Amino acid sequence: MLHIQFEKIALIGIGLIGSSLARVIKKKNIAVQISIATRRQETLKRARELELGDFYTTDNAEAVEGADLVIVSVPVGASAEVAKTIRDHLKSGAIVTDVGSTKALVIEEMAPLLPKTVHFIPGHPIAGTEYSGPDAGFADLFMNRWCILTPFAESDAVAVAQLTAFWEACGARVEKMTPTHHDLVLAIVSHLPHLIAYNTVGTASDLEKVTNSEVIAYSASGFRDFTRLASSDPVMWRDICLHNKDAILEMLSRFNEGLASLERAIHLGDGETLLNFFTRTRAVRRNIIAAGQEIDAPDFGRHNLSKERG
Amino acid sequence: MLHIQFEKIALIGIGLIGSSLARVIKKKNIAVQISIATRRQETLKRARELELGDFYTTDNAEAVEGADLVIVSVPVGASAEVAKTIRDHLKSGAIVTDVGSTKALVIEEMAPLLPKTVHFIPGHPIAGTEYSGPDAGFADLFMNRWCILTPFAESDAVAVAQLTAFWEACGARVEKMTPTHHDLVLAIVSHLPHLIAYNTVGTASDLEKVTNSEVIAYSASGFRDFTRLASSDPVMWRDICLHNKDAILEMLSRFNEGLASLERAIHLGDGETLLNFFTRTRAVRRNIIAAGQEIDAPDFGRHNLSKERG
Repeated sequence: MLHIQFEKIALIGIGLIGSSLARVIKKKNIAVQISIATRRQETLKRARELELGDFYTTDNAEAVEGADLVIVSVPVGASAEVAKTIRDHLKSGAIVTDVGSTKALVIEEMAPLLPKTVHFIPGHPIAGTEYSGPDAGFADLFMNRWCILTPFAESDAVAVAQLTAFWEACGARVEKMTPTHHDLVLAIVSHLPHLIAYNTVGTASDLEKVTNSEVIAYSASGFRDFTRLASSDPVMWRDICLHNKDAILEMLSRFNEGLASLERAIHLGDGETLLNFFTRTRAVRRNIIAAGQEIDAPDFGRHNLSKERG
Repeated sequence: MLHIQFEKIALIGIGLIGSSLARVIKKKNIAVQISIATRRQETLKRARELELGDFYTTDNAEAVEGADLVIVSVPVGASAEVAKTIRDHLKSGAIVTDVGSTKALVIEEMAPLLPKTVHFIPGHPIAGTEYSGPDAGFADLFMNRWCILTPFAESDAVAVAQLTAFWEACGARVEKMTPTHHDLVLAIVSHLPHLIAYNTVGTASDLEKVTNSEVIAYSASGFRDFTRLASSDPVMWRDICLHNKDAILEMLSRFNEGLASLERAIHLGDGETLLNFFTRTRAVRRNIIAAGQEIDAPDFGRHNLSKERG
């Protein structure tokens, strides 16, 4: 892998993803200069305190001035607005990318707003935690995770290669696919699980016969695994639902079919159907561990951690 | 807390729960002698290799001979059969308990089979991992977890106090409730989440437009959290579904109502409803962490562990 270094990288948005990028760019020396723009004064102040970059502003236009690589890391609903604020200030030949969790609609919204003189190559690193904001980031976030790029047929091959090298320098593996396929894949691996998790936690909160304190006390028996996803950033998830509607509704419909058949098997006391269903899902986890996308410690290794901490 | 010691404890079943009990009983010196019974010769051999007890047999009747405390740790569908094999061999005055994940039907099945000369006090430690078998157990499994006892109105107070002291010696906190309420609580904190997890993993496996290898590669974006629960012991979960049918169907119906309203909000592009829904679930996780039922590390601390392991 060639060492890649940009003269100036502009980070628009400095939340979990943006601040992790800032940290890894600095750690791996991927840019001579990092400029950071974020909307809120308070967030910008925190970014400065954390020494995440070299230049700080609440003005997106100012941040992208002279940048070779511009990375937009905002909730997908805010992408178009960012494109408007930077369009007239981008350096000719600059690469502009994003990290949005949905692609087709974001591209439809951003692409027409950006000048032809820049290389717009949409992307999405498949990495994150349930925490948000500049303090939540860390340099290893992208290590061994995938970053999906969705270049256009007419995208400049050199620019795509440079963006690929950038993500590889951040520790990620890069895959390319169409925006539509990306949105379908993410609907099942990310959007459906988050919706289901939010709904499970919501269901538990609304019960009259079981109290919230009971739910909390006995949560170690399964429920608590859902609370991690259900504590993710609400604005980010609202925007995802609004921006990937069709794929999410398709996956929800498949999910509902499966659940209806499980429900029927329970109703009928059909143990054989239940046993078959519960048996075939076991292998998936082993494959995820083998693919390096999960640790193999029981309970996600929570026991090891609590021992460490006394 | 008084130190409690039994002369002889018999463990029927030596899987995750039984073998964790064996380990903590030995570690905390809670019994002078541990006898272990399990149906399969191979499992018994493994228990012996792991030095989990003092006496090993495939004959439940032989194991319970002279025991002061008998703990039945088998899938709930096998509880009645165990009761039949031990009924004529129990020492008068012995405490008989179980660890089954459902209570009302298990009690209905076991209680009539057990002699009036023993104290049958049903129980359920709310602890576990996705692994099963004698190798999966560990002495700390019950530490700071809850154990629910569902004694009868006529249960002997001394026997209940002794069983309470036993679980406390294992590191657990003890709560008492009715079998019916237990089954309702567990339906929401454990049974529903497992069903939902199994169904999410099943849905992903059945797609034509997204390949299994794509699901595996990009699983870190949410999906993998579900695979832990969906890799739990299938026989155990079949039995739970068959034994807690009404409460599970009630929770599924509530879950479906919630999901339908989320689906509708996505359909209508109703961002306000989505944002409200995603906002109110966030506090639940904080409360679970505060209650000591979860660690506060992002991503369940997976990053810390992978760093440790290089």
